[in-house]
Amino acid sequence: MSDFDTWLTSLPAVRDQAISEQAQQRQLQLTKPAGSLGKLEQIAIQLASMQGTVNPQINRVHISVYAADHGVTAEGVSAFPQSVTSAMIRNFAQGGAAISVMAKQLNAGLDVLNVGSVDSLEPINNVQDLRIAAGTANFCQQAAMTQVQCHQALLIGKNNVDSHHKAGVDIYIGGDMGIGNTTSATALACILLNLDPTSLAGPGTGLDEAGVKHKADVIEHALNTHRANCSTALKTLQYLGGFEIAALTGSYLASAKLGLPVLIDGYISSVAALVAEKICPGSKDWFLFSHYSAEPGHQLILEYLAAEPLLDLNMRLGEASGAAMAIPLLQMSCALHNNMATFEQADVAGVLV
Amino acid sequence: MSDFDTWLTSLPAVRDQAISEQAQQRQLQLTKPAGSLGKLEQIAIQLASMQGTVNPQINRVHISVYAADHGVTAEGVSAFPQSVTSAMIRNFAQGGAAISVMAKQLNAGLDVLNVGSVDSLEPINNVQDLRIAAGTANFCQQAAMTQVQCHQALLIGKNNVDSHHKAGVDIYIGGDMGIGNTTSATALACILLNLDPTSLAGPGTGLDEAGVKHKADVIEHALNTHRANCSTALKTLQYLGGFEIAALTGSYLASAKLGLPVLIDGYISSVAALVAEKICPGSKDWFLFSHYSAEPGHQLILEYLAAEPLLDLNMRLGEASGAAMAIPLLQMSCALHNNMATFEQADVAGVLV
Repeated sequence: MSDFDTWLTSLPAVRDQAISEQAQQRQLQLTKPAGSLGKLEQIAIQLASMQGTVNPQINRVHISVYAADHGVTAEGVSAFPQSVTSAMIRNFAQGGAAISVMAKQLNAGLDVLNVGSVDSLEPINNVQDLRIAAGTANFCQQAAMTQVQCHQALLIGKNNVDSHHKAGVDIYIGGDMGIGNTTSATALACILLNLDPTSLAGPGTGLDEAGVKHKADVIEHALNTHRANCSTALKTLQYLGGFEIAALTGSYLASAKLGLPVLIDGYISSVAALVAEKICPGSKDWFLFSHYSAEPGHQLILEYLAAEPLLDLNMRLGEASGAAMAIPLLQMSCALHNNMATFEQADVAGVLV
Repeated sequence: MSDFDTWLTSLPAVRDQAISEQAQQRQLQLTKPAGSLGKLEQIAIQLASMQGTVNPQINRVHISVYAADHGVTAEGVSAFPQSVTSAMIRNFAQGGAAISVMAKQLNAGLDVLNVGSVDSLEPINNVQDLRIAAGTANFCQQAAMTQVQCHQALLIGKNNVDSHHKAGVDIYIGGDMGIGNTTSATALACILLNLDPTSLAGPGTGLDEAGVKHKADVIEHALNTHRANCSTALKTLQYLGGFEIAALTGSYLASAKLGLPVLIDGYISSVAALVAEKICPGSKDWFLFSHYSAEPGHQLILEYLAAEPLLDLNMRLGEASGAAMAIPLLQMSCALHNNMATFEQADVAGVLV
């Protein structure tokens, strides 16, 4: 078995159940009616069990955005031309994109990884040029990637997480950029959840009703072409995925195996999380879900993952923007958990006896 | 007409429609699909029109928590004893309460105003002793407040906002603490929205089903006793309100008249916002709503106010905690609005032509 196969099939880490119980006990002692901080209580308990400490923290936040192009855009499935992917890579690096502004506001680290734009770009400060190819192949005609390319993409995500885990981050966020990638993500989810394209396909960056119908037809065609080859989650990723989706999947798998909490973004990220969970069941124990995307198919993917995201702000941008918006909630959750007085400390206990 | 009456009947400020349109135009030029930042776009546009600038900011945040006791607790309507109000006033001041931790995390100002605890408290650092009385009267037997007391409470809120407005804050948050105050708030909302107590009464700090039923019966009795006297919103506040609810109402009215944005917290705060809107229609133009409370009656009050809060975290603590949790969303909304590149700046415009 190759190193890659050994890694891929290794088990995810296990959360600390004893710490989880200690954190739950602490929540019951804090000066508030039990449960009155709602999801903020649950987040603190989950983070405690992931970080293996009754005092969890979200100080060192890292965001990696993976960008790539998709051959399936030749079928007219996106409201934007493919060249926007390259323009946005430059925009990430120059600080003008939403996630650039958000990372700065959060004082978070930000990596931009070009894993396969159609255009060969000039060297750009703050962009890692890791192009696997000039976009994936059009999966209406052939497999989106070769097996080697799919492994390359998974390893890019794994290596990125490995380095940030070594450097010591408290939570990892992966984001996506790639014109056409809701089509790829939807095709993946249709196979993995055995759903019809019409139940998942949505407007993406802004298709009208006829555009969404066409997108579903394109996906249906691709499913019919490749269904027999999609015998495993890994094969499905190779035939219908994208380089950035595979890199995200690799990063999520690596995080779960290392026991590093991951904050999942929106539609694309949730599909990558689904692929990771299908490849390596139990990985999702390390995933926190940030927001409900406005992309209508997101709900079905979240349901399968038993995910209850924190935010519902009608966002649908990708780039890790939804996950970034949830970071202050995690930070506040930790601050409350660690710093509130207990009934005993506040002399409220006597009052309640 | 007294100074008080003149103030009370003066009109709320008017939001800047021209700035609102400029902010909307700017959102369309930022490097993202139109609308893809969802509610974060709308918040920035609303804040721009409130602050009268196309570059809104939420840097200087002020939180005032008003605490008081309620005579109606004699009817057994709360899971906690009345003495918890005083214990929590001390806890706010010592930094151990949820809102204390949150204000510190947000670098926000925090006032604690004792407007009527049952207990006469020792002087406490960081607590303003403005006790109007040792709690309100039990409104099952008589009016909760005299007219003079109700005006006093409204003026405490007004004066607090006046001073922070003069000092220059970007947004004002009012919070509540008072054992029994969901009973008072529910009674107020029943009169003002012409609803039955069973449709609004909820568990508050933690009543069981029988407790909620009893609470609704107590409110029903109070409504039958005072309905004829509740001919105006102001009279309703006097007969069924609480000192902290009236102070909150005064603070919201003052903010609206001064044109200072307010971030409304949960159930109690929303009822105070409802009273303010009923006293001075149009006040709600200055209210942003932070979260859906777990208190079941909140939804009906929000619907009347046409409010769509940002967060739904199953919180039900009060103390301004839900509003505090929404501040990072407002700050991120402003950062994105002010600092993202436009299509032209990022050279994406050429790509899209």
